[in-house]
Amino acid sequence: MKKITNYPKLSIKTNQISFSMNDVLIIGTVAFDTIETPFGKVEKALGGSAAYASFAASLFSKPALISVVGNDFPKEHIKLMKKKSINIEGLQITGKTFHWDGFYEYDMNEAKTRKTELNSLEHFKAEVPENYKDIKYIFLANIDPEQQLGVLRQMSKPKFVVLDTMNFWINSKKKSVIDAVKKADVLLLNDAEARQLFGTANLVNAANQALRLGPKAVIIKKGEHGALLFTKNKHFNAPGYPLENIKDPTGCGDSFGGAFIGYLAKTKDLSESNFRKAVVYGSVVASHNAEDFGLNRLKRLTMNDIEKRYREFQDIREF
Amino acid sequence: MKKITNYPKLSIKTNQISFSMNDVLIIGTVAFDTIETPFGKVEKALGGSAAYASFAASLFSKPALISVVGNDFPKEHIKLMKKKSINIEGLQITGKTFHWDGFYEYDMNEAKTRKTELNSLEHFKAEVPENYKDIKYIFLANIDPEQQLGVLRQMSKPKFVVLDTMNFWINSKKKSVIDAVKKADVLLLNDAEARQLFGTANLVNAANQALRLGPKAVIIKKGEHGALLFTKNKHFNAPGYPLENIKDPTGCGDSFGGAFIGYLAKTKDLSESNFRKAVVYGSVVASHNAEDFGLNRLKRLTMNDIEKRYREFQDIREF
Repeated sequence: MKKITNYPKLSIKTNQISFSMNDVLIIGTVAFDTIETPFGKVEKALGGSAAYASFAASLFSKPALISVVGNDFPKEHIKLMKKKSINIEGLQITGKTFHWDGFYEYDMNEAKTRKTELNSLEHFKAEVPENYKDIKYIFLANIDPEQQLGVLRQMSKPKFVVLDTMNFWINSKKKSVIDAVKKADVLLLNDAEARQLFGTANLVNAANQALRLGPKAVIIKKGEHGALLFTKNKHFNAPGYPLENIKDPTGCGDSFGGAFIGYLAKTKDLSESNFRKAVVYGSVVASHNAEDFGLNRLKRLTMNDIEKRYREFQDIREF
Repeated sequence: MKKITNYPKLSIKTNQISFSMNDVLIIGTVAFDTIETPFGKVEKALGGSAAYASFAASLFSKPALISVVGNDFPKEHIKLMKKKSINIEGLQITGKTFHWDGFYEYDMNEAKTRKTELNSLEHFKAEVPENYKDIKYIFLANIDPEQQLGVLRQMSKPKFVVLDTMNFWINSKKKSVIDAVKKADVLLLNDAEARQLFGTANLVNAANQALRLGPKAVIIKKGEHGALLFTKNKHFNAPGYPLENIKDPTGCGDSFGGAFIGYLAKTKDLSESNFRKAVVYGSVVASHNAEDFGLNRLKRLTMNDIEKRYREFQDIREF
């Protein structure tokens, strides 16, 4: 196993206080995605929860990545990540890159898997580089919950932890998922996962169960129907953006999470009202992400695009 | 066929100008509903699209009803309608009352039909009483589109027409449904019906197709996910209300429509911004309706309840 070592030193000293430039830590997968939708197909495009999340977070903050790829991972992808100021000191390189092959049918609401080749992900053990250990904002993006918990244990003093997961882990490692929920400040999941994890069809009920486990907030992502933010006795309903041309919904949830924590790390305001803004920024970035295949849209996305759509989000819910 | 004749005269004369007290005309079904949900059961409760719609409209305005029931229709229901100031001069009485028997499973999103007995609805021909002909606001609630068109032809000068329909009519009488859409100012339908009628999974695309047929606005009801209002180049996204206890969703769409047109008839403001408010009032009344079986909740609903929840709808949208 080798590490990418040519990354510039990210710790600087000012008045004898050492601190890291990175303000968000992201652990998750980096993958090759083969995706087919009714509107086209891409083969082995850059994907994975941590890739989408870190690209999205990089629009607001300076993310540091923990993940694994294979020796077949193209240099262009590494270059692109560095260009986005994503710290990849924590990106391990060994074996072959994790490969997901899936498709969407007409309604685009659910990804169907053709093939999953875990490859280097199978024996991955998340290691937190020294330079990352003081990062305060942590996004445990979708990956094995035991890796998520492992990262948390290695951090010196996490201030704010956002947790995402997926149906696969709820099925196979529910106890670990619940352990991770107990350590999270914000639980992020989609509506189907919320129903599955808490055994209820009612999302309000699911959110209330989640809040009782410890998180200060639960965000339920509903794709085209927007997102719900539940905090103790408060509820926020973020609109979905009316996209006529959705090309590829892959990574929308991960982009949402990356933008959500990126915005919070940038503004350093953890009030309920700022959570609401962060949810809208998450929705804005996720809605852009669906407009093109893979990471193609996020690669080109600018703060101008984001602020313009944020204003549209304000307009479409005004009454 | 007999008519209910003991209804007080509703035309009054002031300065030689005759006008009707009723400001909203509603045509649709009045039914016996047998409903089972995971939370209980009712047998032969008062229901039907026009019943829900007129109860909801009566919270804001003075609806006049066109429908048919049987000789088995209880006097208490007639009394209740009169108590709600619903004009039932256009309610025909013949044969047996239409009876729908259905149930909902765990997720409560879709009604499943056990049995439909059309009874007196089978040979119903909508007749508009003279006293109704000058009413300006017309809600063509869910019923055979040929009856909806027949009512429109009998009106002297309709100012504002709202059209609802359902999958059954889209399947069996699509051409008539489209003819009715062309005559409507506002088309109201749920997401599945929008997809079905316009042959697309994308709701924005469906709405744009509908707008090209003539309506100034299209409202797509999405149950717990809220409602979308599309007008030319404008879009409004109304939140769903986070109900932890949904007992019976029957009639939510009809209640939405009744409250929507009732509010507009009351305020007499057909601007896009007032449409938005009307959509929220529709959502408010529909969310209350789901809290109890049949019309039980609407029977007791007050303007205080409505204004309180309207403010909650504002709060859950603020960012």
